[in-house]
Amino acid sequence: MAEPRAVNRRRLLGGGAAVAGAAGIGWGAASSSTRAVTTARDPMATVPFHGPHQAGIATAPPDHAAFVALDLRPGATRADVIGVLKIWTDDAARLTQGGPALGDTEPELARRPSRLTVTVGLGPKVFGVAGVQARRPSWLAPLPPFTIDRLEPAWCDGDLVLQVCADEPTAVAHAVRVLCKGVASLVTVRWVQRGFRNAEPGASPRNLMGQVDGTVNIAPGTADFDRLVWDDGAAQPWLRGGTSLVLRRIAMTLDTWDEIDRDGRELTVGRTLDTGAPLTGTKESDDPDFAAVDRYGIPVIPPSSHIARAHHTSEGERFLRRGYNYDDAPIPGHTSNSGLLFAAFQRDVAAQYLPVQKRLAEFDALNVWTVPVGSAVFVILPGVRTPGDYLGQSLFEG
Amino acid sequence: MAEPRAVNRRRLLGGGAAVAGAAGIGWGAASSSTRAVTTARDPMATVPFHGPHQAGIATAPPDHAAFVALDLRPGATRADVIGVLKIWTDDAARLTQGGPALGDTEPELARRPSRLTVTVGLGPKVFGVAGVQARRPSWLAPLPPFTIDRLEPAWCDGDLVLQVCADEPTAVAHAVRVLCKGVASLVTVRWVQRGFRNAEPGASPRNLMGQVDGTVNIAPGTADFDRLVWDDGAAQPWLRGGTSLVLRRIAMTLDTWDEIDRDGRELTVGRTLDTGAPLTGTKESDDPDFAAVDRYGIPVIPPSSHIARAHHTSEGERFLRRGYNYDDAPIPGHTSNSGLLFAAFQRDVAAQYLPVQKRLAEFDALNVWTVPVGSAVFVILPGVRTPGDYLGQSLFEG
Repeated sequence: MAEPRAVNRRRLLGGGAAVAGAAGIGWGAASSSTRAVTTARDPMATVPFHGPHQAGIATAPPDHAAFVALDLRPGATRADVIGVLKIWTDDAARLTQGGPALGDTEPELARRPSRLTVTVGLGPKVFGVAGVQARRPSWLAPLPPFTIDRLEPAWCDGDLVLQVCADEPTAVAHAVRVLCKGVASLVTVRWVQRGFRNAEPGASPRNLMGQVDGTVNIAPGTADFDRLVWDDGAAQPWLRGGTSLVLRRIAMTLDTWDEIDRDGRELTVGRTLDTGAPLTGTKESDDPDFAAVDRYGIPVIPPSSHIARAHHTSEGERFLRRGYNYDDAPIPGHTSNSGLLFAAFQRDVAAQYLPVQKRLAEFDALNVWTVPVGSAVFVILPGVRTPGDYLGQSLFEG
Repeated sequence: MAEPRAVNRRRLLGGGAAVAGAAGIGWGAASSSTRAVTTARDPMATVPFHGPHQAGIATAPPDHAAFVALDLRPGATRADVIGVLKIWTDDAARLTQGGPALGDTEPELARRPSRLTVTVGLGPKVFGVAGVQARRPSWLAPLPPFTIDRLEPAWCDGDLVLQVCADEPTAVAHAVRVLCKGVASLVTVRWVQRGFRNAEPGASPRNLMGQVDGTVNIAPGTADFDRLVWDDGAAQPWLRGGTSLVLRRIAMTLDTWDEIDRDGRELTVGRTLDTGAPLTGTKESDDPDFAAVDRYGIPVIPPSSHIARAHHTSEGERFLRRGYNYDDAPIPGHTSNSGLLFAAFQRDVAAQYLPVQKRLAEFDALNVWTVPVGSAVFVILPGVRTPGDYLGQSLFEG
């Protein structure tokens, strides 16, 4: 525990278990850091539903989230897809504003929206079913396989997705229930993944490995954000204002992570555990200096470290991270079942997300303790600008 | 939907689906109502660890809870049991006060206790293993089988139990991880059940059926509470200041619950959905009047209703309810997997809990939509009065 940092750093740099593996988690790059500010928890607070973009992306992340993937029932038609989207539009417009859904059987559970957002996306298959194959974004497909993957089909893919977020889990539970049962004749639930995040004041939240996670991110309201997250309609005019979601379920092998001491952990990630500052800095918001070396000539931030590998090599390799921790009931024989719901939003999966994922899959010191067990890619529909319109309307009627 | 209440009531009283089944949920009785007050969420708030009783019982329930059952490994000895309890005592004393556990590998996750409590109990088998069989409380055994039960072994029993509560799920996750891994050589995790609750200001929380749940309860700090919850040491001197926990996992069949209209739901429970007031009252805190009849001579609160059946027939048939909602990932082919972690604390399971459970199992209109799928009984150890002492010390050394 008391080994000097340089010794540990050499051990890490010299290979061995700490660098032998190959999963991207808490992808931290550098420069122009910004982060979501911790918001007060007001159970009556609402997030606007209507607008050029769906809520739940530029929205500061609430404490709780559920990601729900659904599959169209066999024989589903274009009309069925439109039907689902119309129902969800109406439900989401009401629930997010603190009102009950139409025919809500538990209207009292809708009274405390606590910043509820509902964000809707489509998987690849829907475009064929709905006869709009030519409008499918080129990047909308499962990610290519990576050697680090240990994917379980139960956590992969899906025809439709709902991201439901709120500060109170009761609001999430009620919205998920309403949204799923209202379309139960047309779709089946494929998987549900629930998560939480609790940020310290003025800091990014911590993952269950204890690391400050999500430091480097792109800030809503900036030109970077608008350019990197929102589709501009150049390739697919119907998609203007939409984006994409990559959801990776990343299991943490906490039992072996416990075997590595604090210095080793910090060198693995490239940040201090205490504040999340890069090893070359003193504050979480400091930019990492990947060129800095110590008196032995050894890089202060190991080139094998997570933040060094995750660092974007061009401005285009950036995306919005909006992840949640998960902590499910352990499978028999295990002590815990924890990890990260790594949610990434970007205009173009191929151009922005894949290069970083490939680089991390190829090598990232953190890969020893992180295992991707789920993976899914969805196109996130543009927002509903006008009450009465429905999610996806530009895809079908534009 | 617009049927007059009397018609529905007759239908309910006359039998049929609504009264055909036989599970106790949200057990509401009457008189001397009190309830926990919603507390502000301060991430730095702590609940004292030391005292004559363990925390987490008289403590106003935080928003999140995990119940963890563990089994002793084969060959475990008295020394092992004492070892587990000493480790847990030290961990809980530190974590609940906002500090890291000894050797905590993620000390930063301990920084925001958010009213963390850790409550420790023992199952029946431990008394034999530890050679203290004569000190086993007479009521410490699995509940007798009920015809309503559809118990799954995965959610039943256990040698030891941890109840871990906090307002932030990260604090719960970290504490559970620390407490489980610190004793992993001596015990295995049997099950983990996680839940949440969100109360409206000045009201009891709602369950996922939409009902105000937990209205009638016994209030910490009253003579009733002290008499009904805390063991007085009369039968087992070592247990003075302890109590018992009955944990029932009660699944809600929400799909069929959706088929019943609001009047039917209110008659099933005996309370309004809007405010939780008894059908004979206007406020949640009003005492139900089971003798009141309408102009047709029909009882306003149906005798088959949940609150009528759950109503204690003597003052001794009362206990502290401290339940949490659960909303887990659905099993394939289902839309949801929701219910209640019904946690009841009482001095004597046989005298206080069982009569009510038997009455509800025999008949309760709500049983049609509630299914007990898990059941466990534990003795909750007395508190640790003096720093340096350990949980269960009076059992082994008294």
